[in-house]
Amino acid sequence: MKNTEKTMDKIVALCKNRGFIFAGSEIYGGLANTWDYGPLGVELKNNIKKAWWKKFVQENPYNVGQDAAILMNPQTWVASGHLAGFSDPLMDCKECKERFRADKLIEQWCQENGVELPKPIDAFSQQEMKDFVEDKNIPCPSCGKHNFTDIRQFNLMFKTFQGVTEDAKNTVYLRPETAQGIFTNFVNTQRTTRRKLPFGVCQIGKSFRNEITPGNFIFRVREFEQMELEFFCKPGTDLEWFNYWRTFCHNWLLGIGLKDENLRLRDHDPEELCFYSKATTDFEFLFPFGWGELWGVADRTDYDLTQHQNTSGKDLTYFDPETNQRYIPYVVEPSLGVERSVLAVLCDAYDEETVDESKNDVRVVLHLHPALAPYKAAILPLSKKLSEPARKIYEELSKEWMLDFDETGSIGKRYRREDEVGTPFCITVDFDTVGDAEKAGDNCVTVRERDSMEQVRVPISQLKEYLAERLAY
Amino acid sequence: MKNTEKTMDKIVALCKNRGFIFAGSEIYGGLANTWDYGPLGVELKNNIKKAWWKKFVQENPYNVGQDAAILMNPQTWVASGHLAGFSDPLMDCKECKERFRADKLIEQWCQENGVELPKPIDAFSQQEMKDFVEDKNIPCPSCGKHNFTDIRQFNLMFKTFQGVTEDAKNTVYLRPETAQGIFTNFVNTQRTTRRKLPFGVCQIGKSFRNEITPGNFIFRVREFEQMELEFFCKPGTDLEWFNYWRTFCHNWLLGIGLKDENLRLRDHDPEELCFYSKATTDFEFLFPFGWGELWGVADRTDYDLTQHQNTSGKDLTYFDPETNQRYIPYVVEPSLGVERSVLAVLCDAYDEETVDESKNDVRVVLHLHPALAPYKAAILPLSKKLSEPARKIYEELSKEWMLDFDETGSIGKRYRREDEVGTPFCITVDFDTVGDAEKAGDNCVTVRERDSMEQVRVPISQLKEYLAERLAY
Repeated sequence: MKNTEKTMDKIVALCKNRGFIFAGSEIYGGLANTWDYGPLGVELKNNIKKAWWKKFVQENPYNVGQDAAILMNPQTWVASGHLAGFSDPLMDCKECKERFRADKLIEQWCQENGVELPKPIDAFSQQEMKDFVEDKNIPCPSCGKHNFTDIRQFNLMFKTFQGVTEDAKNTVYLRPETAQGIFTNFVNTQRTTRRKLPFGVCQIGKSFRNEITPGNFIFRVREFEQMELEFFCKPGTDLEWFNYWRTFCHNWLLGIGLKDENLRLRDHDPEELCFYSKATTDFEFLFPFGWGELWGVADRTDYDLTQHQNTSGKDLTYFDPETNQRYIPYVVEPSLGVERSVLAVLCDAYDEETVDESKNDVRVVLHLHPALAPYKAAILPLSKKLSEPARKIYEELSKEWMLDFDETGSIGKRYRREDEVGTPFCITVDFDTVGDAEKAGDNCVTVRERDSMEQVRVPISQLKEYLAERLAY
Repeated sequence: MKNTEKTMDKIVALCKNRGFIFAGSEIYGGLANTWDYGPLGVELKNNIKKAWWKKFVQENPYNVGQDAAILMNPQTWVASGHLAGFSDPLMDCKECKERFRADKLIEQWCQENGVELPKPIDAFSQQEMKDFVEDKNIPCPSCGKHNFTDIRQFNLMFKTFQGVTEDAKNTVYLRPETAQGIFTNFVNTQRTTRRKLPFGVCQIGKSFRNEITPGNFIFRVREFEQMELEFFCKPGTDLEWFNYWRTFCHNWLLGIGLKDENLRLRDHDPEELCFYSKATTDFEFLFPFGWGELWGVADRTDYDLTQHQNTSGKDLTYFDPETNQRYIPYVVEPSLGVERSVLAVLCDAYDEETVDESKNDVRVVLHLHPALAPYKAAILPLSKKLSEPARKIYEELSKEWMLDFDETGSIGKRYRREDEVGTPFCITVDFDTVGDAEKAGDNCVTVRERDSMEQVRVPISQLKEYLAERLAY
């Protein structure tokens, strides 16, 4: 029996071998779970960002975009609560010096030993976690001993110094989320766009979290990109809008081709909710290593804007011309990770298909949505003698789309290489295309579709239209 | 006489008032020269990046893209020389405690006093700068006294700590340029793309420099984006490729609409060149504050890859199948700043035009290239009664382009608002469009072109084609 199971190893290997994702700083032995996107990875990632921007900003009548700086005034993190509370509970094993997150240690131990937690781990205090470890006599997963340090809180914000001296006055932080840059600009955005409620602000950008245990390839990384929408609405309409965006986000994921069977929407129980949140749903995806969070949609009430108003002393209320009242808008936040989306898309699209049972012939194929595929088409001259007419087609079509051009190896091998990176169409230029002394060329090319592997003959003059119809998003 | 001079004040005010660019963290009094891009700014900036990617990656047969992490193994900065040498010469006034860059202090004093430097300031050693200040008796620009500290070198890399402890072992840096992530991936990229020389790798991403004196709005900032190409070629062909890219970059700037009269190409003199560079050209743009560097194109020889090979111990040579030899490729690097491009484009496009002399009627207009304009078109129902048919047009066209929808104020005022943000086309839906009980609608709209202010009547069914032709890039 062939092993056609999707595994992380296979996906990581494909990414590395085909130029999707390389280990960061690889020639120097890497740097703890940083990743570089190669020629195909950067296209896939950009296509996901473009697809999000198109549906959330360009086509959506409610939303506008923005792009705030990564470095923000540290008061931002006082207001948001990150400076005081954005931390992990750390614990060291005194015997083997291994370091753990107490919450993860407890969760893992419970899972392995079939013990059910009395409440969600996020609801445990530091003392409760310590007591739990001692009560249950949880051992160090590394050396098996029972000699842990106390739990201490480790703030996850990366800090740096702006200016010459490395002191508190010059300490700034790399933002741990993009959202706050939307809140601090709320008045500017509302004023300059002259928008009335409800309206939303979308942003794509890097955030940084000094995670103790990054891992699972690009699933949990210290440097990552977020696609966040903060949707401002009138208090009382927030749950309605929460449901609107919950459905909208779900449809967006289906629209970029994710299979519904690999998605689940997990609504938070009341005791699991942050104290300021009225409703939260986690969108989870079934990765090869299990269900993992992809997208969080939360009703954050007026918490963030109120915090910033109190901390800055600036008026962040909205004047409602319909009721002639001033109030702080409520906020619904769908927050999606770019890298996790990339990984979900790759895992969902990856397939090993038996092409010919008798020859044990299996092809690896990425069934990527055409809008996400790094190359929209590959131009393949059947022989190097056909390079010139093939190049002409490449030049013409590359004005519209990202293309590959490949003239080495058998045509079958080239098809397989394109399947493996998800190219929806292969365009083969052959001798019939150009003709010879005896027979005029038919000025047609063979277009092969990735998923069905069906081939049709298409006139060069109709290629652009043919592809445009099939690549529309 | 009207003041129709372009000034930074006017451009900064337009950016702030129309949602292009806000001061970062403004509600907290800002953070030293950080800037946030508002709804229109993010579109303009993204459009510039897209235009670069289209011409440098998508349409260019030589180049591929990538996107490396901001955090890299610190050995990278040992190899590149940034850890040892990427620093500014700092000097404090002991009297008034003001801090200066010695090189800038000398340059400014020379300019103000008509003194010619014996050689470029970059060629001065630290001691030579100190001697020059003393010989010429240069005073503190702030208090006028002559009591400076010694000059000391201040490294411009932002540092932070990855992991729990803040020690040397955990120190990492925010990259000061994107280029090194291309060099460290050279072998990975060449292997996975199976490219032969010459080929190039393009990257857009954030870099960070702890500048002592940022300023001139978004011209010099600590957090900025770069669009860099590292073009790998056979030694001996490098000057040819240097000229190719020098011309290519020039044409790209003209292609996005910059006026040639606002550009100058300054070739470095031999004594001005870095020791490893064979040729360097600075593209300078005439900003309201004077000529400023926009783009550097440099022949960097095999310096970078050799440094990384020596530091990492990894083989970074290329096997040339034509000569059967291994060698380290030469590199030509065009390096362009995104923010500076945004500023150049805004300054170049800004205009105040007298529309009606007799009424002293002046319009502010951004003559942006359509590919860069934040909104490609604005849909303007003449009356709120026409919202519905106007919305239909908006919905249809917004699948293709970013649009504005504006139904408040007189049509003349709305035209002016669109002129001010560079919208190439205004599409007005009026009562003739829809007709009434007595007269059938003509299903046409009025399209007004920004620069000529000419208006034509276009059938709704032809709108998409009409715009597509005129918005092509």
